[in-house]
Amino acid sequence: MKRFFNKRETIVAEGLQGLLRSSFGMNLCRLEGVEDIHVILRKDWDKQHVAVLSGGGSGHEPAHAGFVGKGMLTGAICGQLFASPGVDAILAAIRAVTGKAGCLLIVKNYTGDRLNFGIAAEQAKALGLNVEVVIVGDDIALGRTDKARGIAGTVLVHKIAGAAAEAGKSLGEVATLARQVAGSLSSIGLALSDCNVFTPGQKPRLSDDEAELGLGIHGEAGVERVPMAGLDTLVARTAEKLEAALPHEGDLIILLNLLGSVPPIEAFALLDGFSRTKLASRTKWIIGPAPLMTALDMNGFSLTAMPADPAFLEALSIDVGPKSWPGIAPYNSIATVPCPTLPETFVDAPSDDAILRRLIETGARALLDSEAHLNTLDATCGDGDAGSTFAESARQILKAVDSLPLASPRKLLATIGRLLARHSGGSSGVLLSILTTTAGQEEDWRVGLQKGAARMQAYGGAKPGDRTMLDALLPAIEALEAGRSVKDAAVAARKGADATRGMKARAGRAAYIPSEQLADIPDPGAEAIAVLFESLARSF
Amino acid sequence: MKRFFNKRETIVAEGLQGLLRSSFGMNLCRLEGVEDIHVILRKDWDKQHVAVLSGGGSGHEPAHAGFVGKGMLTGAICGQLFASPGVDAILAAIRAVTGKAGCLLIVKNYTGDRLNFGIAAEQAKALGLNVEVVIVGDDIALGRTDKARGIAGTVLVHKIAGAAAEAGKSLGEVATLARQVAGSLSSIGLALSDCNVFTPGQKPRLSDDEAELGLGIHGEAGVERVPMAGLDTLVARTAEKLEAALPHEGDLIILLNLLGSVPPIEAFALLDGFSRTKLASRTKWIIGPAPLMTALDMNGFSLTAMPADPAFLEALSIDVGPKSWPGIAPYNSIATVPCPTLPETFVDAPSDDAILRRLIETGARALLDSEAHLNTLDATCGDGDAGSTFAESARQILKAVDSLPLASPRKLLATIGRLLARHSGGSSGVLLSILTTTAGQEEDWRVGLQKGAARMQAYGGAKPGDRTMLDALLPAIEALEAGRSVKDAAVAARKGADATRGMKARAGRAAYIPSEQLADIPDPGAEAIAVLFESLARSF
Repeated sequence: MKRFFNKRETIVAEGLQGLLRSSFGMNLCRLEGVEDIHVILRKDWDKQHVAVLSGGGSGHEPAHAGFVGKGMLTGAICGQLFASPGVDAILAAIRAVTGKAGCLLIVKNYTGDRLNFGIAAEQAKALGLNVEVVIVGDDIALGRTDKARGIAGTVLVHKIAGAAAEAGKSLGEVATLARQVAGSLSSIGLALSDCNVFTPGQKPRLSDDEAELGLGIHGEAGVERVPMAGLDTLVARTAEKLEAALPHEGDLIILLNLLGSVPPIEAFALLDGFSRTKLASRTKWIIGPAPLMTALDMNGFSLTAMPADPAFLEALSIDVGPKSWPGIAPYNSIATVPCPTLPETFVDAPSDDAILRRLIETGARALLDSEAHLNTLDATCGDGDAGSTFAESARQILKAVDSLPLASPRKLLATIGRLLARHSGGSSGVLLSILTTTAGQEEDWRVGLQKGAARMQAYGGAKPGDRTMLDALLPAIEALEAGRSVKDAAVAARKGADATRGMKARAGRAAYIPSEQLADIPDPGAEAIAVLFESLARSF
Repeated sequence: MKRFFNKRETIVAEGLQGLLRSSFGMNLCRLEGVEDIHVILRKDWDKQHVAVLSGGGSGHEPAHAGFVGKGMLTGAICGQLFASPGVDAILAAIRAVTGKAGCLLIVKNYTGDRLNFGIAAEQAKALGLNVEVVIVGDDIALGRTDKARGIAGTVLVHKIAGAAAEAGKSLGEVATLARQVAGSLSSIGLALSDCNVFTPGQKPRLSDDEAELGLGIHGEAGVERVPMAGLDTLVARTAEKLEAALPHEGDLIILLNLLGSVPPIEAFALLDGFSRTKLASRTKWIIGPAPLMTALDMNGFSLTAMPADPAFLEALSIDVGPKSWPGIAPYNSIATVPCPTLPETFVDAPSDDAILRRLIETGARALLDSEAHLNTLDATCGDGDAGSTFAESARQILKAVDSLPLASPRKLLATIGRLLARHSGGSSGVLLSILTTTAGQEEDWRVGLQKGAARMQAYGGAKPGDRTMLDALLPAIEALEAGRSVKDAAVAARKGADATRGMKARAGRAAYIPSEQLADIPDPGAEAIAVLFESLARSF
């Protein structure tokens, strides 16, 4: 168990301090002055409206403190890990936030929470404060009984009660609505691992081929062990269990809650998997996927269903201060726009030119002939496919030679650029595509090649001397640019390629290979360029 | 490796579909019509402003698609896991979003991304579109070189460029600002585990006593293995490494990014740990902790620093559409409000009454005398502390007897209620506190006890017949309520306690014990109540 913590005894206090220091905490404050009281409150609270408090054991972040803010909770009373806060802390919170409008306590259905919140409520009433308590037990794992545990659905009660309070409703109205919500919730969780309360050496409860359905958010074992399976199977199983506990008809709001350590891509894939369950057809609104009520590091999720009641929807849709609230959206099919037409590779009419045709065919054949040699060189300093990558580019060009606008060097370069972008694998093909595409934008192909070479450097990130194909290519282009012959360019390219034997690699995969290993071996890219120019020179 | 996925080949598509179906996706759409092109766009885009595109390999969610929306990215081009998207996909995205105002591509500094985005930009320019490219390389793990990788800081470029584009700035202005931001970023990561690209059976790279500093977001090994340590040590080490790469002076904006599977409470504790580093003194603004640029399931975080430049701050502070943006807040000390005075336990002047004093002392002694007996009963059906819990309540009351307002039954009950709430451990003390606190609110103590008993049931969740102390308490209270004697109440309590021997436990810990194990043993709570009333009856 490797985890980020100092001591189990301090993580609750550190976590709450971190929340207050974070970009989620700028509108929050905490009660100060009594040890072991962890109460987080809205900074801007003026007691004009009904206060909405919740809380319970810690380890469920962002619940409960992460939902304190405009439109949701007025405050959260946080106990130690998985342990109810004490009466004093709850009473202190009630006293801090309750004005004439009164206070609603939203309490998850656990004996410790019920008792501590309950007695605090009694004490507050004895002090003349108007307090109501709503108990939430949304877990249907053990059936729909009065023992049902409060899990992720509780946050929906926070949201709807918070909206009603913010709108200025009376305590009676807020409490009645909160009870309606609590009574309408059904939740069930599935996890691949149990959670660990910062206990080093604790053995995982589940084996590698097991998952758990209907678990609690404090490490309580699930009601069923199910075989480990693909995402769709696991989500379908969870949705079926949930569906069996629901009324048979009616549109639903679904919350997909994450239990603590599910990576984001998997979280979104879970929702996609949900779309393939039977329950999805009744789902009209979606909340999440997001961590709302976690269980420390548990790798799992829960589904909560509630009827798509217009009053619930209205309250759920209102924007709130707490950034941990993930919003609600219509659960519809996916919106699409048609993909723009991709440019044709061959936009110019084919044309012929004997010299250019010969140059292209000669160059391409030279690269095909060098495939094995270049691969061998690359095996020492890369992943051994440099020859095949150049050969594939050559093959594509040879195959297309009759479609090329050979009579126009500019159009020819541009067409080769598009061809290589679409069909060549590997970085060298893309680099040559950049060179030729850029070159194809200039009337003078010599200027174009030089601009293209500059852009290759900009995108590829290599400079001359970094032991790349540039070390052969740039000298060759310079020779051509200076008006010298292809033969001169070939001599320059060969000299450049040979020089790479002594260079330290500073780009591409070879940069991670010890220099000794590269000694006296030319860079395969530079070698390919030299081979190419030498073949062109011979064809004149 | 237990993970939520169907197949490695489909998780990118499923993750993006899930995003679009989620409450984060209601303003998003995707390009449709060409296989293997994964482009997510703003639904409401009208090409009036500069388009801002980013993207790269997948596995970094919410980056990049999660930051598409008003005020951030116009679109995201998503490759396969950790693999750059192809030129066609990037070009399709550029064509879909680019109007006269042009388009900025924000590209992380990896060869594949640089090349594919680069060539797509060239092709778009060849089509007459105005495109600029900004490369981000904020990772300082390998020093501040042009090879520096783009990591979490990239999202800050998305945010600031997105704000400038939304404000109607020109492409030149947006690109210049984006380059300034990219040039000002410094990031470094630390992780407790490497990531796993959905490869079953892959051995973890790190042992249980190692962490890794300066890692990449694709599983690239860190530049340093460091010993596993407490949170503060690990955060300090990361902050020191970052600080060494920063200018020596100037206020900072810090981003705390999560790498994929850090539970929320640990994430917030990490930020609290950061407050104890030297770098915290220069930190004036904070973003996160939140997952912005993840590395699949990596259990780690990264810190990004940038100068608190007013132009950057203004752009970072603007609200945006994407809910994955965690906001920015001043990094100040924690806001506090004083804890309200907790009510005094002894609010009423002490007074005496011979009968009540005798009753209380007798009852308390009876419970003290029964401690061992009740513990023995509880050892069979609970955690063996029922006797000690009742005894502790009795001890507290005996200790306080001279401070009690004995002359007023109402005040006496209320005071005992407050005393038990503060000092008794365990649920039974809290339940008795609920009983007496409620009872203390009524002028007639008989009515009060009955109301209190009802409230005990409401909070405790047990009913008569559930094998709890209620089974003795309720008959006794009914007898008193009916005007019968304490002796009659004691007989009723005893009868009730004895009846629990045959009851199935339906509340408290005993509910989880097989019924056979409880056969013929009375419930220890009910037994305690019977013992109490019998002692009171004897004292008359």
